[in-house]
Amino acid sequence: MTERPSSRPVRVGLVQARVRPSYDETIENTREKVREASERGAKLVVLGELFASYYFCQTEDPEVFATAETLDGPTVTTMSALAGELGISLVIPFFERRAPGLFHNTLVIAGPDGRSLGVYRKMHIPDDPQFMEKYYFTPGDSPRPGDAPGQAGFSAFQTPQLKVGPLICWDQWYPEAARLTAMKGADILIYPTAIGWLPSEKPTEGAAQLSAWQTMQRSHAIANGTFVAAVNRVGQEGSKETGIEFWGHSFICDPMGRVLAEAGEDEEVLIADLDLSEIENTRKWWPFFRDRRVDAYGAITKRWDEDR
Amino acid sequence: MTERPSSRPVRVGLVQARVRPSYDETIENTREKVREASERGAKLVVLGELFASYYFCQTEDPEVFATAETLDGPTVTTMSALAGELGISLVIPFFERRAPGLFHNTLVIAGPDGRSLGVYRKMHIPDDPQFMEKYYFTPGDSPRPGDAPGQAGFSAFQTPQLKVGPLICWDQWYPEAARLTAMKGADILIYPTAIGWLPSEKPTEGAAQLSAWQTMQRSHAIANGTFVAAVNRVGQEGSKETGIEFWGHSFICDPMGRVLAEAGEDEEVLIADLDLSEIENTRKWWPFFRDRRVDAYGAITKRWDEDR
Repeated sequence: MTERPSSRPVRVGLVQARVRPSYDETIENTREKVREASERGAKLVVLGELFASYYFCQTEDPEVFATAETLDGPTVTTMSALAGELGISLVIPFFERRAPGLFHNTLVIAGPDGRSLGVYRKMHIPDDPQFMEKYYFTPGDSPRPGDAPGQAGFSAFQTPQLKVGPLICWDQWYPEAARLTAMKGADILIYPTAIGWLPSEKPTEGAAQLSAWQTMQRSHAIANGTFVAAVNRVGQEGSKETGIEFWGHSFICDPMGRVLAEAGEDEEVLIADLDLSEIENTRKWWPFFRDRRVDAYGAITKRWDEDR
Repeated sequence: MTERPSSRPVRVGLVQARVRPSYDETIENTREKVREASERGAKLVVLGELFASYYFCQTEDPEVFATAETLDGPTVTTMSALAGELGISLVIPFFERRAPGLFHNTLVIAGPDGRSLGVYRKMHIPDDPQFMEKYYFTPGDSPRPGDAPGQAGFSAFQTPQLKVGPLICWDQWYPEAARLTAMKGADILIYPTAIGWLPSEKPTEGAAQLSAWQTMQRSHAIANGTFVAAVNRVGQEGSKETGIEFWGHSFICDPMGRVLAEAGEDEEVLIADLDLSEIENTRKWWPFFRDRRVDAYGAITKRWDEDR
């Protein structure tokens, strides 16, 4: 039986940060902000995509693979210990080395005892000018019968307060990913992200890109009756002429898509209180799951559905 | 081979109307507005859901079934003739009687020669207080091998100017419906709609409901790189205390989700010019179709995916 949630809200914190010149400084800055979120009462704290380093996918550089870590490497170990110390759940994205020549864009959810509650490997990998991720990351595994829980594909993980459905950045453009994760029972979909403006595009496309990014993720909340949190980085990486200006604007929205809290374009620890009873209430008034045509969705697994 | 679209824009018209006291008056009002759209240059004109009558699903009334029509009934015949006279494509929603005791919420797309280009039967049927559609409408058919094109399930139909992917109202909350229709090659997803505020909910929920409705449909444009048009009715039907206030706000957005034109809360013929080359251009910059994980979406056909 599914327990009805208590009416006590769950406080969530998002760490919107700027990368520092060195790994140690970045980790230290992140630790401070996680402590701040915890002191302000957050029981779930989410870090940005690949938070421990600059966004290295602007170029294809084989030397970067040396910075990847295993699931028990220093970044996950350090941050998991912090989660245990503070008694919070912490979402820790990092560059994973799974085997020689096999790398993923991954996150671990550490529970309040500092142990892993689950692992998610980014399923949709982009590759655009200055976001050359297909060079670095193998797409996450598909769910297969017999997989250990949470080791592959779309999943949701139970923390003491709520069930967390992790996705990463480019996944945010795929309604399928949101749906499949919500169907795992997620109360909140979280999107650690590294998205920003290219200087050549910002004047004409910048506002539309930011609006599309937020609209798409708010729509996942609405379609699925879940909370959604997007955690982006901030700051200029690379030159002002050719680099990326990460646009921040991390936000949390409720199951109606209402934005509960939104960050600006500087570093910020964003806090929001989630009333989990809104999930059931929203789905009661707009019962979309009742009416899904599961008999008619089979072609979703096709690449395209015209006769070509 | 897919032809690259010419840079000549396609003008589209949406008829946002209020129902009249009699069928004849409603048809006459609609005809006038279709003529206006055509005179203003629209080559595709879209009418609202069940435009020919008041929204009868506020109650369950067996007498209403007598108003349903066949695919060659008076409403489709009259409006198709108008399409032929004006040389436009016209989307004609109506209450379909398919067989004794078998009814659908249907639309026909009439081409500029007045003949049917295709039929779509609403796939997702709501049933909420005052929107008791499950009493009246059987859900649309699933696609099956061997079906005649466009006779069943999700489809898109080629008009002389663009390929139209029809969906109806409640379908708008389902990303699966938008995706499957876009994968049929639709340039534009159209949503004839009858949605409004209940007086008991409007003060607290009205703004969020309208925003969610627009956000969801804009997200379909973004996720699929297509244009989207939503056509709603306006006006109070039933009493101010217990009826529905149809909220209008019909709109058209581009493949980035930018609203090109939006109506207010009164009758209006809404016109927009669509540059079809934006579809390919948008998908070139944000190539979401390239990266769909068709190997990992199989569970979309499940009802739920937790172990219960």
